[in-house]
Amino acid sequence: MRQIAILGIGQIKVDEHWDLSLRELGGNAAFAAMQDAGMEKVDALFVGNMLSPMVSGQNQLGTFFSDWIGLWDQESVKVEAACASGAAAFRAGLMAVAAGDIESALIVGVEKMTDKAGHDVTAALATAADSDYEVEQGISFVGINALIMRRYMHEFGWKHEDFAPFSINAHANAMNNPFARLHEKITTEKFERSSMVATPINLLDASPTGDGAAAAIIVPAEKVASLKGKPKITVAGSASATDSIAVHSRKDPLFLSAAYLSSQKAYEMANVGPKDIDVFELHDAFSIMSALSLEACGFAERGQGVRLGLDNEISLTGRVPVCTRGGLKARGHPVGATGMYQIVEIVQQLRGECGKTQVDGAKIGMAQNIGGSGATILTHVLKAD
Amino acid sequence: MRQIAILGIGQIKVDEHWDLSLRELGGNAAFAAMQDAGMEKVDALFVGNMLSPMVSGQNQLGTFFSDWIGLWDQESVKVEAACASGAAAFRAGLMAVAAGDIESALIVGVEKMTDKAGHDVTAALATAADSDYEVEQGISFVGINALIMRRYMHEFGWKHEDFAPFSINAHANAMNNPFARLHEKITTEKFERSSMVATPINLLDASPTGDGAAAAIIVPAEKVASLKGKPKITVAGSASATDSIAVHSRKDPLFLSAAYLSSQKAYEMANVGPKDIDVFELHDAFSIMSALSLEACGFAERGQGVRLGLDNEISLTGRVPVCTRGGLKARGHPVGATGMYQIVEIVQQLRGECGKTQVDGAKIGMAQNIGGSGATILTHVLKAD
Repeated sequence: MRQIAILGIGQIKVDEHWDLSLRELGGNAAFAAMQDAGMEKVDALFVGNMLSPMVSGQNQLGTFFSDWIGLWDQESVKVEAACASGAAAFRAGLMAVAAGDIESALIVGVEKMTDKAGHDVTAALATAADSDYEVEQGISFVGINALIMRRYMHEFGWKHEDFAPFSINAHANAMNNPFARLHEKITTEKFERSSMVATPINLLDASPTGDGAAAAIIVPAEKVASLKGKPKITVAGSASATDSIAVHSRKDPLFLSAAYLSSQKAYEMANVGPKDIDVFELHDAFSIMSALSLEACGFAERGQGVRLGLDNEISLTGRVPVCTRGGLKARGHPVGATGMYQIVEIVQQLRGECGKTQVDGAKIGMAQNIGGSGATILTHVLKAD
Repeated sequence: MRQIAILGIGQIKVDEHWDLSLRELGGNAAFAAMQDAGMEKVDALFVGNMLSPMVSGQNQLGTFFSDWIGLWDQESVKVEAACASGAAAFRAGLMAVAAGDIESALIVGVEKMTDKAGHDVTAALATAADSDYEVEQGISFVGINALIMRRYMHEFGWKHEDFAPFSINAHANAMNNPFARLHEKITTEKFERSSMVATPINLLDASPTGDGAAAAIIVPAEKVASLKGKPKITVAGSASATDSIAVHSRKDPLFLSAAYLSSQKAYEMANVGPKDIDVFELHDAFSIMSALSLEACGFAERGQGVRLGLDNEISLTGRVPVCTRGGLKARGHPVGATGMYQIVEIVQQLRGECGKTQVDGAKIGMAQNIGGSGATILTHVLKAD
């Protein structure tokens, strides 16, 4: 496959942006990426978004944004895979440039979530689950994740407080990311006293939603040297895999099979293994997902993902630094945008632009974006020259 | 770009399928395509759909269907570009196979529209337009098209009855397509007496919605000979282009700029011109769109698309046979599925499987799918060996 490089990145702070419309959210991230890349025009636009038909009454986001950004005439399309929409749009862009039909693509992950009441957004988020066999029973999306976490605790003997390091790490790292939604250090005590959402998931197990957008520009790798002076970041591995959409249909609800499959394929494509990954932006929508992702990607044995947190192996100087810019937990989780935030953050790490949360000498980074409770999972491995 | 062949096709009748769920609609078309291709497994699934988050409370349709179809583990994703979602999914699949990352793809266009009341569906369809600057004014999607048609009639001096041949041709052809929604011949008199929807668009100018699904399987062209005995159909041209999402922002609201751009690119890629096209499945959501599409694609001068109908040039033996299986007007317009019906129908023509609506000796066919009132337009040119 033709090798692809990431030439520019852009993002806005995840927040309650009452003063910014959907157009402006995505547009601002796109303009930032174009400025970073030094490009005013690209051949195509790929937009990752999950909720806008339901929350903003707007479909056809590809053209909605190509129009606003000034990419008139150019190809554009929206890609949706629930909370994995961002990475799915990124992969669709990769494929189009790799096919050789276009020579550059802008990918924007964008989500406007705060224009509706919380219960409306909760209902909209439930469309990520199986409408016929899960949502029909009245369960919410956090409820599904709570069942998984409870079973994991039962099966492997962990206590709730054992999950605290995931959230503490994410919050600590977000302190140094101006684009993060939350800037507040937390402790195990605070974690344990946090209000319950769906037992055993409490407020500090769960990521905050918000309005956000992140973007990147990709081009064929062979064209990069002549275009820009920054370190050359290439997409060394890209893969997508799926599982059943309903958790109860899975052979093992405590194993993220699609994370295993997509990470294995991405490793193989990039010719690396878990031990080569310097930084890992994982999909910590809930603390349980951090543990399951680490296990499926080969960083921990089954049921032992939690130990990586307890042993301080997920910190900036640990064996596998995760959520170095705050993760979903503290940078925030504007669902369809999240996958693109992860890509942008890995690029920042590989460029050495992370200041106090820089992972020293990071050369290989991985981003993993999860749609539903493990139904669609995309893994990308990026490399710096 | 790597050459791609269409190995299998499948479709279900466009209808009010009260007895079939969203899962079954898409699944049945997918199973038919897999049977036609003689394949039980493909590397990836691309789903085109517009309305399911709003009408069925279901997102993440890629994995929703890969799960149902039995493509466990495989990559899947949903693509949305309003009424052009079907062709947009087809193109996303093309790019992925052309990139060489996968060796086969199943593309399914699917839409379930009859589970909700008409006014709910009308509101959902309006998400194809500009929510901030069009829908906000209270205009419906048909209303936008009515403004375009009225202006066209004023500008070029056509009467309403001059559009009748488009609908008459579509209805006549649908009589011989068992998958068509409507099996009813119409006349100019009937066309003129039909009830008004939004002046000047009456019921027989407008395509009926419905539940439907159509699917195709694509593989690298070099692999086809060894797999199947049928004529080899290749995708000779594929292109997508856009215009502003709101009609009032366009330089010329009576010219489908994105149809012009995408058809020009597809012609160039396929090394053909309008005169080489043996059959053209165009996007006759409203009769005015037939005229504008024919003009933008080089079959008629500005303002003269209507004449092709009046001169009988759009019939099966005319210069440019259109809507040979009924078009959106009579086969039906299950929005996100329509683009895949068009691809399936062109394949049927190039295979010589159309019986009474077969275009004699058809070797080169074109399909054009329009999202919004001309905002996103994809054009595909298919060739038979």
